[in-house]
Amino acid sequence: MSRQGPALALTSRPARLSLLVRYRDAGVDIDANNRLKKDIARLARSTFTPGVLSEIGLFGSLFRMPRGGDPVLVASCDGVGTKLTVAAMVGKHDTVGIDIVNHCVNDILCMGARPLFFLDYCAASKTRPEVLAEVIRGLARACRRQGCALVGGETSTMPGWFRPGEYDLVGFIVGVVDRKELIDPGRIAPGDVLVGLPSDGLHTNGYSLARRALFERGRLTVRSRVKGIARPLGLELLRPHRSYFRDVYPLRSRVKAIAHITGGGFYDNLERLLPPETACVVRRKSWRPRRIFRLIQELGSVPDDEMYRTFNMGVGMVLVVAADRARGIVRSVRGARVIGRVVRGSYGVAVV
Amino acid sequence: MSRQGPALALTSRPARLSLLVRYRDAGVDIDANNRLKKDIARLARSTFTPGVLSEIGLFGSLFRMPRGGDPVLVASCDGVGTKLTVAAMVGKHDTVGIDIVNHCVNDILCMGARPLFFLDYCAASKTRPEVLAEVIRGLARACRRQGCALVGGETSTMPGWFRPGEYDLVGFIVGVVDRKELIDPGRIAPGDVLVGLPSDGLHTNGYSLARRALFERGRLTVRSRVKGIARPLGLELLRPHRSYFRDVYPLRSRVKAIAHITGGGFYDNLERLLPPETACVVRRKSWRPRRIFRLIQELGSVPDDEMYRTFNMGVGMVLVVAADRARGIVRSVRGARVIGRVVRGSYGVAVV
Repeated sequence: MSRQGPALALTSRPARLSLLVRYRDAGVDIDANNRLKKDIARLARSTFTPGVLSEIGLFGSLFRMPRGGDPVLVASCDGVGTKLTVAAMVGKHDTVGIDIVNHCVNDILCMGARPLFFLDYCAASKTRPEVLAEVIRGLARACRRQGCALVGGETSTMPGWFRPGEYDLVGFIVGVVDRKELIDPGRIAPGDVLVGLPSDGLHTNGYSLARRALFERGRLTVRSRVKGIARPLGLELLRPHRSYFRDVYPLRSRVKAIAHITGGGFYDNLERLLPPETACVVRRKSWRPRRIFRLIQELGSVPDDEMYRTFNMGVGMVLVVAADRARGIVRSVRGARVIGRVVRGSYGVAVV
Repeated sequence: MSRQGPALALTSRPARLSLLVRYRDAGVDIDANNRLKKDIARLARSTFTPGVLSEIGLFGSLFRMPRGGDPVLVASCDGVGTKLTVAAMVGKHDTVGIDIVNHCVNDILCMGARPLFFLDYCAASKTRPEVLAEVIRGLARACRRQGCALVGGETSTMPGWFRPGEYDLVGFIVGVVDRKELIDPGRIAPGDVLVGLPSDGLHTNGYSLARRALFERGRLTVRSRVKGIARPLGLELLRPHRSYFRDVYPLRSRVKAIAHITGGGFYDNLERLLPPETACVVRRKSWRPRRIFRLIQELGSVPDDEMYRTFNMGVGMVLVVAADRARGIVRSVRGARVIGRVVRGSYGVAVV
């Protein structure tokens, strides 16, 4: 291929580019392919920030560091997990990209970082161009919204590895925070307050349990309508992982710690923040989980404890703040509320 | 878990940590688990460079940027691909980590970058601690060798997604190069020389075709002995992807471009470097491919063209250098040889 024209923006997605060449060899529709190439190029370009030096990036994606200060890079890697099974069941692929970008953005936000750039990995037994374009559309939308450049990706074809229609999607993010502004949970002390921020559903965790409860034990389908849930069950389950970046980044100097409530739920994600001799108590009565969580619990006969260990239960992020800051923080984020407190002790996290 | 002791070094592998907690809940042998935790912590720590700020990294891995200059970050993402099937067939898991680290290191080396840090993603239907430990041992070994810090990772459990014993392994790397030292293939001109560096076998590409040729059409097994190949076929196929970092990084100011010969073989990987109105000619007689390539070609009745488009054919990296530099470069890397030339034209890459 030439280095001019639309292929140029693809230079930062080298592996994907060579995949496209293989498509052509395999006799796949060349027009569809060219459209896909242009789509990917346009979508990736739509996310570019001034740091991106794409025009030279042939075997790697280039990003020029912002100057000044004492920059610390914050990196994280995550997969969408078995939420992808639901996407395949519904046949809707433009939200899983949002899921993984926002998951990654939230993770590095916990350290006080803002996103710089993102790369994706997408693997399937056979890549379908139209599905890949939908996935990348979601990635690009979430990246644009948060000033994060989608600089590269790898599309891996692994014949026989995945079921037809299924693919794995993984994200890798790099952000930056000045050394002085790194959020250090070591300052957490008894008396601090836990402020919970509302989630938009399951986000990206607990889908194996959810599917067992809803589809196997409950015999529901992705098309089922359930009282109290506005959309068909499949779409409810596909609600994208919410990004807390816009709400929380401006507050970063006023919080002591941030927990992203993902796999491991309240227990793991809060516990890992706690300095020695501190514990925390979460009062579950302080908010009302969305209907979907109660539905899963009822149909799956899931014990309370397991629910709070597996799901976010309606709280996607927890800010740990000094008591005298709590009120201001609660007022500045829509839906935020005090959900618990840090205490002296060494029992970890109690959900009461 | 507490923030002291061996768990501490795990703080930069947050997702993996929570997985370990889940293991325990699932009734997996706690002792084995604790050993695994300690192993991972020790292995990750053994790769740490002065930039790593692991003690605070809870939801993301922290890396302090080296000061000075005009640093450009170079990022890349790759999967091991279906070489993992061979690893599962042989039951040997300590080389695939080397494969993916070296693949990534070579990719960013093409831009003139040295590695800073690496994250892995490992997905399976059910994670087996002893296999995971082996995989990470390989990752850590390759990282240590190249001064690259293994700062994080994600272990994803996706029940029912992968065949028993199989897992996917993906790597993300970030390296750095000073803006002034970025390798810019735009300077390639007719008359330049292609210097090929020897590969150590298939590296990480072409395994679907290789398995079809050797195991299906050729009816060989991973235990088969083949004349001219010293080890059993499975081990020959598992030879790790060679890193060119130590050989090539010191030469970076003396080369015009570097191509990592991976998926797409000679055609795609050289073609993407070529400025308009330049083409290149690779003379296949200038080196002798390893026996394994001829074996695949014979048993699979693979046309020459497809071989050079799929495999590295014994040349894992190509340096494009000015003619008057070629001799010095060839002398400074063991096994290096002139394999072709840049010419005027627009036909891309010709392997003659």
